[in-house]
Amino acid sequence: MEKLPDINQNFAEWYQEVIYQAGMIDQSPVKGTFVIMPYGYAIWENLQAVLDKKIKETGTQNAYFPLFIPESFLKKEAKHVEGFAPELAVVTHAGGQKLEEPLVVRPTSETMIYYMFSRWIKSWRDLPYKVNQWANVVRWEMRPRAFLRTTEFLWQEGHTAHATHAEADDMAKQALDIYKFILEEYLAIPVISGIKSDSEKFAGAHCTYTNEGLMPDGKALQMCTSHVLNQSFSSSFDIKFQDVDGQVKTPICSSWGFTTRTIGALVMTHGDQAGLVMPPKIAPIQAVIIPILKADADKALVLQKVEYVKQMLTQAGMRVVADLDETKTPGAKFYDWELKGVPVRIEIGPKDVEKNQAVLVNRVEQDKTKKKQFVAIDGINASLEKLLFDIQINLFESAKKRLQAKYFEAEKMTDFGPKMDSENGMYQVGWCGDAKCEAELKAYKATIRCLLNEQKHETCFCCSKLSNVDVVVAKAY
Amino acid sequence: MEKLPDINQNFAEWYQEVIYQAGMIDQSPVKGTFVIMPYGYAIWENLQAVLDKKIKETGTQNAYFPLFIPESFLKKEAKHVEGFAPELAVVTHAGGQKLEEPLVVRPTSETMIYYMFSRWIKSWRDLPYKVNQWANVVRWEMRPRAFLRTTEFLWQEGHTAHATHAEADDMAKQALDIYKFILEEYLAIPVISGIKSDSEKFAGAHCTYTNEGLMPDGKALQMCTSHVLNQSFSSSFDIKFQDVDGQVKTPICSSWGFTTRTIGALVMTHGDQAGLVMPPKIAPIQAVIIPILKADADKALVLQKVEYVKQMLTQAGMRVVADLDETKTPGAKFYDWELKGVPVRIEIGPKDVEKNQAVLVNRVEQDKTKKKQFVAIDGINASLEKLLFDIQINLFESAKKRLQAKYFEAEKMTDFGPKMDSENGMYQVGWCGDAKCEAELKAYKATIRCLLNEQKHETCFCCSKLSNVDVVVAKAY
Repeated sequence: MEKLPDINQNFAEWYQEVIYQAGMIDQSPVKGTFVIMPYGYAIWENLQAVLDKKIKETGTQNAYFPLFIPESFLKKEAKHVEGFAPELAVVTHAGGQKLEEPLVVRPTSETMIYYMFSRWIKSWRDLPYKVNQWANVVRWEMRPRAFLRTTEFLWQEGHTAHATHAEADDMAKQALDIYKFILEEYLAIPVISGIKSDSEKFAGAHCTYTNEGLMPDGKALQMCTSHVLNQSFSSSFDIKFQDVDGQVKTPICSSWGFTTRTIGALVMTHGDQAGLVMPPKIAPIQAVIIPILKADADKALVLQKVEYVKQMLTQAGMRVVADLDETKTPGAKFYDWELKGVPVRIEIGPKDVEKNQAVLVNRVEQDKTKKKQFVAIDGINASLEKLLFDIQINLFESAKKRLQAKYFEAEKMTDFGPKMDSENGMYQVGWCGDAKCEAELKAYKATIRCLLNEQKHETCFCCSKLSNVDVVVAKAY
Repeated sequence: MEKLPDINQNFAEWYQEVIYQAGMIDQSPVKGTFVIMPYGYAIWENLQAVLDKKIKETGTQNAYFPLFIPESFLKKEAKHVEGFAPELAVVTHAGGQKLEEPLVVRPTSETMIYYMFSRWIKSWRDLPYKVNQWANVVRWEMRPRAFLRTTEFLWQEGHTAHATHAEADDMAKQALDIYKFILEEYLAIPVISGIKSDSEKFAGAHCTYTNEGLMPDGKALQMCTSHVLNQSFSSSFDIKFQDVDGQVKTPICSSWGFTTRTIGALVMTHGDQAGLVMPPKIAPIQAVIIPILKADADKALVLQKVEYVKQMLTQAGMRVVADLDETKTPGAKFYDWELKGVPVRIEIGPKDVEKNQAVLVNRVEQDKTKKKQFVAIDGINASLEKLLFDIQINLFESAKKRLQAKYFEAEKMTDFGPKMDSENGMYQVGWCGDAKCEAELKAYKATIRCLLNEQKHETCFCCSKLSNVDVVVAKAY
């Protein structure tokens, strides 16, 4: 395999290469779509398991809605169709015939799901109504990038209807909090949470909440969003309920999604020159055991110990494999498993068997002194658990420090704008709220990533009038 | 809600009604597609959990392949395209433009996956190569029936490549055995396993194995299949590997799928006049607790006990809900939960609280004497577990008896053919192997469901020549 491109010099190429070399993804014959290979898909499965549990805890139930949506449905919500029309894939023929009405392959399911809600919701007793689906969606992508921008991607989409705006708003915030929890606690990616400006919000939303990450190249990445839709879709699809007071009302809806894009964020946030680095909580493989064989005479004993350790760790609930391939040297194996970002390597050789010990090697290299440690096999469960725990914490802390190092306070666009090439990052500034000022950021290829809760800056970054709100400005993926 | 149609007189209408009334499914605005509602989807999730584990135990890894397949790919395997062409949905426009090459929405993924295999498989060391995906597929359906025949359905599709025919054959058989295990042990549906005749096998397969169920109306239902594809796809997509002996060879492939159709089979197999009956192992809700309140004075104590029992059973790993709706009478609740087929109802009233007991009511009515039992709350975990276990066994045994009662040995088509209207069922007969004899069954709207391993009959059901193999003949869904 070819050496990975320099991560500091050519971050974009490094990203493109590492995901292929590590076996996470492959190109498909259809432009813009990708094959998520087993090592990439296992991360998605781990994410699904934790996120699905959290979603169910909110009282949301899973369901499944059709892939195809009548084209006329999209058109019922004016802003929605305006936003999605350029990205639609359209089925015009099926069953050997031209269809009377073309069918759109869902780019998101608001229109289908809120149509169904109109059949199901009749009374305040039916509210809140909360469903979620795990599904594939299609948005035609002119400049595809694996995981980050793909014509087809996987996600969950939650859709809810509520009697009041406050409840729908709480739901959207709760979803964003759950996403932040998964991102920070599992993927070890720190995020800035806020609200999208009107020009960046979801097509059809009243308000879009967002979690924004900062990648090592200083570009922001929108990780996931949740929306308060108000009555845009519930009016268009005629959802009505009889309230406690007997009046017929229109519910307030929310929707929220978490996608395979987060796998791309994971790769970028933690990877290094040797390859991927997987946070232990989400790693498909948490530790790989590699037998160190020199003389044939040692083989049986070493392999026996390797098997014993593997069984023990597996029974303790850790995801462990043993690499017993006899056609490869230990060095070649080290290289492969570092490329895949397995957090811990366990080496067992004849001397280790003698001493009933093993060597634990930490994939993360920032603290060389702690990189290798000898541990007793009798206590290896606890040793590995402790090391995995530490790695998880350290990855998050390192990522947080990197974010902080690239998070700047600034005042005037004319000052920070020109710096954004050399000192790329997030700039917290004041904003008057005028879309014209926001549009001026195009000159620096930057955008408002989100509006913040706190207010530190008194004047707008552009017009110098009074600021209404602090915002985060950055170049973005 | 309207009364369910008579299950004995109008089985088809009963089926159509019960799945809607029980909240499993709803019609969608796109013909042939359906919404799987939470109560239906929960069954699929339970099936996924057990089946996914079994699939992984075979060394198969999950991955995800694109929804869209270039139209030219389908055409690479002549029989495959011939079989699927009439059912394809085709995307002709995307991203606001007409596509140069139309894209087919996958009806199954052999062509995409084996194309990818040709990029991944190089050496005998890569074999066997085993992947599986959980996905939606689309086959345009002119006569849709919820769960049983739908334009879009959910499934898993496993695809494997092997160095030898024997290995691929073993894999296909192993998949069929896993399916049979899930069907019989979880869904409590007995099946007859066998091989499809050439005219009924999968388009592009060398050999198709099948599990066939028999529904209460005497019609057979193909539950799921597995295929030995030989080199049909591996040749078409140019998959090559260097074998141990240095020679370049073409691998033998297998594929196998299990779909949401099995939920329809579950409904038909166990349902009764009162509604669904859920086998406990797969039931979304295994028991529902209903407080029996008469005087307001009892309320607090009864509800406290209901909550206590719910907590205790939930902690013991059982799926239990309490129905505390105060706008409904206990009788109305009994009706609703019987309709949903929850295997056990737990009633707790003031007298039960006094005696520290609860009433367990078995949803399955065949043995009235055992329908109701009083159990001590102190031992309710064990009592409920035992009852759920018994119900699971009894459902399977009952279904098996019904199958046996409609499984006939027969000799000549002219004898059993005319009987198939009044005595619908499976007929085991001898067959010479000639497709012409098979075609004669059309006169009775019957087909060969599968070829069996055993041979009891000496002459062909049609031509009376020597029989090559015993087959099962039935009308089918």
